Amino acid sequence: RARTEVLFFPSEMACLEHIFAPSSPQSCCCPLPHGVETSFSRLVRCILSASSSLDVCVFAFSNIDLCKAVLTLRCRGVTIRVLCDKDYAAIHGSQIGVLRRAGKRNRSIYFLNHHKFALVDNRLLITGSLNWTMTAVQSNKENVIVTEDPDLVLPFLKEFQRLWLHSDPA
Amino acid sequence: RARTEVLFFPSEMACLEHIFAPSSPQSCCCPLPHGVETSFSRLVRCILSASSSLDVCVFAFSNIDLCKAVLTLRCRGVTIRVLCDKDYAAIHGSQIGVLRRAGKRNRSIYFLNHHKFALVDNRLLITGSLNWTMTAVQSNKENVIVTEDPDLVLPFLKEFQRLWLHSDPA
Ligand SMILES: [Zn+2]
Ligand SMILES: [Zn+2]
Repeated sequence: RARTEVLFFPSEMACLEHIFAPSSPQSCCCPLPHGVETSFSRLVRCILSASSSLDVCVFAFSNIDLCKAVLTLRCRGVTIRVLCDKDYAAIHGSQIGVLRRAGKRNRSIYFLNHHKFALVDNRLLITGSLNWTMTAVQSNKENVIVTEDPDLVLPFLKEFQRLWLHSDPA
Repeated sequence: RARTEVLFFPSEMACLEHIFAPSSPQSCCCPLPHGVETSFSRLVRCILSASSSLDVCVFAFSNIDLCKAVLTLRCRGVTIRVLCDKDYAAIHGSQIGVLRRAGKRNRSIYFLNHHKFALVDNRLLITGSLNWTMTAVQSNKENVIVTEDPDLVLPFLKEFQRLWLHSDPA
């Protein structure tokens, strides 16, 4: 049976160092709890599980840790594509400019892009109500579905491809 | 295998009369196309499939047709519970007041409720990026997952119950 998991937010805040740097455990001196699994750490782990490609289609992308996850994948040679909302991409706090400067292939969608999904290696779907912002993760009541069920993954693969073809360079 | 379907928006606009009043076909004189299935008509059909209960947990609820669907179920004796965002419920265009006057048991959630899900008969989950507004249905790029997969339905049932217990009368 396909792996399916539902994550609910807001997430407790915890340090992500053991996820980003698993080889140097407990070196972090930040005041957050360490070595704790939360909804957000699960989400970051799912994104970091990409080995060949990550396709992201979100309205807002201002969360620093999620940006770090995407840049980490980039360093590992994972192919990244980001589709964002055209208007949102221009505002303060958006990480789209950071991603562009890092050489990501980004595109923006005209008209309101209200999706919040990502596809890992064309195999794992991450979708839900969660915008990729700080507020959403820490404050809002949100949900994220993580699934390998082809009945869900395939329609979203098609939708990403369709939107990518109808988008513009960001 | 559990029934799973993904609907993408924006939806074409089409008359819903054949769905709301299937016994009197083609009596409607509105200018919209008739007898056409769209993403939105599929969504309304899923909601109207409720025979015992409908639990709704959405940030915004201003869509007239979705309100009509909920009131239709109410007339059929279906038990309705609506959880909405406390701040949004107060603004102009919200249908929460209409639902309350119709005797629905509504509650509001303090802090941002960004969920957009509904549960039909504790069996069918409807969830995604779509707010229950006109704009979302007609303009935004959105997705809605409709599924009977227990791996998805059960966590959302628990989440609704938890939020319901921690909410206030609207
Ligand atoms: Zn730390
Ligand atoms: Zn009509």
